[in-house]
Order: sequence, then structure tokens, then C-alpha cells
Amino acid sequence: MALAVTERELRRLLSEYPFTSIYGFRLHGIAEGQCTLDVPFQAAFERPGGLVSGPVFMAAADVAMWLALLTRLGPADGSVTVEMKTNFLSAAKQEDFRCTAKILKLGKRLVYGVAECVSTEGTLLTHHTLTYFRPDSTQQPAAPQSAGKPRRPGRPR
Amino acid sequence: MALAVTERELRRLLSEYPFTSIYGFRLHGIAEGQCTLDVPFQAAFERPGGLVSGPVFMAAADVAMWLALLTRLGPADGSVTVEMKTNFLSAAKQEDFRCTAKILKLGKRLVYGVAECVSTEGTLLTHHTLTYFRPDSTQQPAAPQSAGKPRRPGRPR
Amino acid sequence: MALAVTERELRRLLSEYPFTSIYGFRLHGIAEGQCTLDVPFQAAFERPGGLVSGPVFMAAADVAMWLALLTRLGPADGSVTVEMKTNFLSAAKQEDFRCTAKILKLGKRLVYGVAECVSTEGTLLTHHTLTYFRPDSTQQPAAPQSAGKPRRPGRPR
Amino acid sequence: MALAVTERELRRLLSEYPFTSIYGFRLHGIAEGQCTLDVPFQAAFERPGGLVSGPVFMAAADVAMWLALLTRLGPADGSVTVEMKTNFLSAAKQEDFRCTAKILKLGKRLVYGVAECVSTEGTLLTHHTLTYFRPDSTQQPAAPQSAGKPRRPGRPR
Repeated sequence: MALAVTERELRRLLSEYPFTSIYGFRLHGIAEGQCTLDVPFQAAFERPGGLVSGPVFMAAADVAMWLALLTRLGPADGSVTVEMKTNFLSAAKQEDFRCTAKILKLGKRLVYGVAECVSTEGTLLTHHTLTYFRPDSTQQPAAPQSAGKPRRPGRPR
Repeated sequence: MALAVTERELRRLLSEYPFTSIYGFRLHGIAEGQCTLDVPFQAAFERPGGLVSGPVFMAAADVAMWLALLTRLGPADGSVTVEMKTNFLSAAKQEDFRCTAKILKLGKRLVYGVAECVSTEGTLLTHHTLTYFRPDSTQQPAAPQSAGKPRRPGRPR
Repeated sequence: MALAVTERELRRLLSEYPFTSIYGFRLHGIAEGQCTLDVPFQAAFERPGGLVSGPVFMAAADVAMWLALLTRLGPADGSVTVEMKTNFLSAAKQEDFRCTAKILKLGKRLVYGVAECVSTEGTLLTHHTLTYFRPDSTQQPAAPQSAGKPRRPGRPR
Repeated sequence: MALAVTERELRRLLSEYPFTSIYGFRLHGIAEGQCTLDVPFQAAFERPGGLVSGPVFMAAADVAMWLALLTRLGPADGSVTVEMKTNFLSAAKQEDFRCTAKILKLGKRLVYGVAECVSTEGTLLTHHTLTYFRPDSTQQPAAPQSAGKPRRPGRPR
């Protein structure tokens, strides 16, 4: 099945929005319902001791799942994050990591998936589960307006 | 019961670490096992459309809970975030918000609490639950080394 | 605001379905978007040592939230549980407990709330967060068909 | 690596405790840090419409993870459930299902894993994440006394 978005389109999305580009997320690759980001270490991520702070992992997981969703629904999709859970399993010390998100269920209204951040040496750092809500195509988004992801400029809310 | 930390100590912690100071979190107030942060809007928080991005709320909740914990355990406490869940309930548009965290159970090893982010008009924006792990006082931290919070410089890990 | 359901209707729902009646949940009281159940101890709940087993708390929270939802949406509402998180905070030993659920956000599509189980002595035993999905009134339920709650006999799925 | 428990020991545990035996969970198989249970449909599981009620899936996931943990820590291990999250993805209608739990991180103090319930036709019904706490070997369990799993009779708490 052909993907609903190209890597080029996703790279443009990642660079286009200040909030995403600040983190320096780099697209590693996509597949159907799946996306992997590389996250090079930045001093700004650091907590004292050189550990990567928790919100960096959560941002990576939310963005990776958003892009995974676009591989199925196309770049104009307006889905928003409903809920997200993170378990912090091991620390990353002044090092890059990789985040992979994968859709487990693409429903008409709700999308569910998992994400994980792994060190370059293969250690599992964090594990995440996420639910997205797909708004009606025929109307404005209903309940949750919030989400941890960028949005196309000029898109009406 | 006297608090184990002063507001002055917490304000210093907030300003001392780049990761926390970037967000501009301001201490609004503390009580026993409780902490409220003010989060003034910044352009860097913004997703297209002027919405505050999800990781900002998650960072606020994690830091507020960390400070709430210090009101009970003192500024040198080395607890780390085990897991955190966020539900995104309403969007914030180019506006400040306030985040309050509250400990519901302070165990010998595990601490559990809730946090919520509320707009200046009183709209509930996000709701969070968090678990922290308290390391042995007599030994190095055991399992999860990761956490979404700064740590005192020079503290051994 | 008048409630969309009566205590009598809720008591009938609780007794009418084997799955709910097995647990012996008793309606303690309702308010707008809120419901409290009493859960008398049963030998069948017991794990060795006389502790109440985890799924009993989770069932109580799911049912209490369902009834809380009905106080707003009426007894024929067809909402289903999307996700549920439970933190186990203290054990209950061969004792009754009380479960209170409260809606924090009633959206057009998604409903979010919290629940807690408390011992008769006031100890917080468990804390829960739950999300429900409200199906279209004009069509069949979309994505998640599953839920931890009874349903009116004869209601089409 | 040899498992720390035999299938025979686990089958005995499943039959020995009323709370587990009520559900009729059957051990399908184990591997290192992994366990699969078969759950034959019972009328008692049913919500109106013949759907399997949510707490049945949650009980299966909690028990499967407990047994997965015993494959690493042995049958006398006293770990307890700290937190558990469930996403309900598809309904099961008067049908058997299979639940597989898998440990992702076995820490000194905390154990984290995922579980999923799948229909006999391969449909993903529910997805779960679970955290367990391992008590000190040298002292009584510290914080959370609660858990969704049986315990050896006569074991001191």
C-alpha cells in the first residue's frame, strides 16, 4: 500500500514549525503507520548531570506518532492528541536517541499506538502509549482541542 | 507542619537549571505536598494557530510535581519520575496558564500525585497523573534513572 | 440542574446485569456528573491474605464513571470506555470500600473523569482516570466497541 | 536461560486461588519474561449484547504479567502492581480470547511490561501497560500493598 505522505513532505513539516525544529528531530524513516525519528543530543535537553530531560522524550514520541498517523491519513489530517502515557525506564546521558512510533489501531474516530525511545546502544529509555482523535471531515473538531504537535499554518480550528 | 523547603529555595532551583528556566515557569505558591506554577505564554510554545503545544503542559506538570515533592522531602531529594499520564482536554491559545500539582500518596518508595493546567479564565486544559520513585537513602538509585526534572549540580548519580 | 437519570433507574441498571450484580455494587448517591458506589467485601474478591484483588477496584471505577456519565446524558446513553488507568496506592484487607467517580470534562465526543476508591477509615486505596467515547447519535458507534460496563438489553450495537 | 518457574507451578497457582480460577484462565505457554493465557468465554463475562466486559481483559492482563514476572523471579516473588493502563480497541462478542504479557524492563525495584488481548481471529481487542514494584528481599513491602493478582496462601505480608 502506498503511503499517504512522502518523506519529503514530513521533513518539510518538521522544519517548518518552530516548536518541532527547536528539538532538532530528524526523520529517519517511515513505513505504513510507522515513523522513526533521530534525536541528536543538545545541551538544551540537559538536566544537571547530563541527563536528557523527560519532556524531550515525550515531545519526540508525540511528534513521531503524529507523523506515523500522516503516513495513513495524509499531510492535511487534523487529528489531535487525546491522551499520552510515558514510562521512564532508563536514563540517557548526553547522548542521541531514536524514537519509533507505531499505530496499533486506526479507527474511524480514535487512533491508538505505541512509541519507544532507544539509545544508540539499544537500551530502551522510555515507552509511550498515545491516543489521537480524528475530527469529523465535515465539521470542526469536537472535544479535545489540545495536542502535542504542530499544525499546518492557516488551518482553521 | 512546616514545609521541608522554602519558596526562595524553589525559585532558585527553577532559575538555576537551563531546562526549567527556558520554559519560564514561575512559582506561584506552595503548601504541604502541593505546588502551583504560573506559565506565561511564549512564542516558542506555539504551534501554528497560536496553540500551546502539548509538551509544555507535560513539562509544567512534571516540574510542579517535583517541587510539590520537595515540600515534603526537602531540596536535596533525589526522586525520579517513573511514569506520567496526560489527558489533553481543551486548547490554550496564545495565553498564560497555571499548573497545580498535588501529592495524593507519599509512600516510602513511591509517590503518586495529580496535576492540572488551567487557563486564566478557569478552563481545565490538561489533567495529569504522575508516579515518582524515591531511591534508597543508603544506596544509589535502583531502577529508573530517568526523570523530567532538573537535579542539583554535583549530586552523584 | 436536574439530573438526567434517577437513583431508582441507576439501581435498576446495577441489579439488572449479571456482570454488575456479581460485584454487589450499591449506589450510595449521585450528583451532577458524579456517582458514589459502596462495595461490600465478598470472599470472592479475596486474594490470599484477605486482600481485595485489583480488578475489583477497576470494575468499581469503570461502573461508577459510567453511572456518573448517565447523570448528564441519560440512561439510554451508549458511551464506551476508551482507556482507563489505575494506580494502586494502599491495600484493602477483607473490608468494604467506597468508590467515587467524577466527570472533569464532558466533550461532544470524549468524556474524561477521575475515580477513587477509599476505605471506610478514609485511606485512599486506588486512583483512576478514565476516558469515554460518545458515539454519534445519528449513526452506529465508530471506533472502540469495548467497554467495562453493562449495556441496556436490546440496544443495537 | 532456564526459567525460574515451571508451567506446572504456574498452572497450580492459577487453579489454587479462587479469584483467578473464577475467570478460568488457562496457561497457554511461557518464555523468558513472557506469558500467554487463554481465556475461554463464560456467560458471567457478558455484558448485554454478548460483549466481554472490560474488567475481564484487565484481570487477564494483570495475571498474565504476574506470571511473566515469575518466569524471571520465581514462584515465591512478592511483587505487586503499582499501576496499569488499558486501552479498549475492539469488542469481543461471546468469544474466547488470548492474552500475552511481556516484560520490557526488569529493574531492581520496578518492572515494566505490556500486554495485549487478541481474539481467536487475530483482532487486537485491548492493549495494556503495567508497572510492578519488587519489595526488598530483606524487609516487608514498602509502599503499595495493592495488586491485581493472587498470592501464595500463608505468605506473610
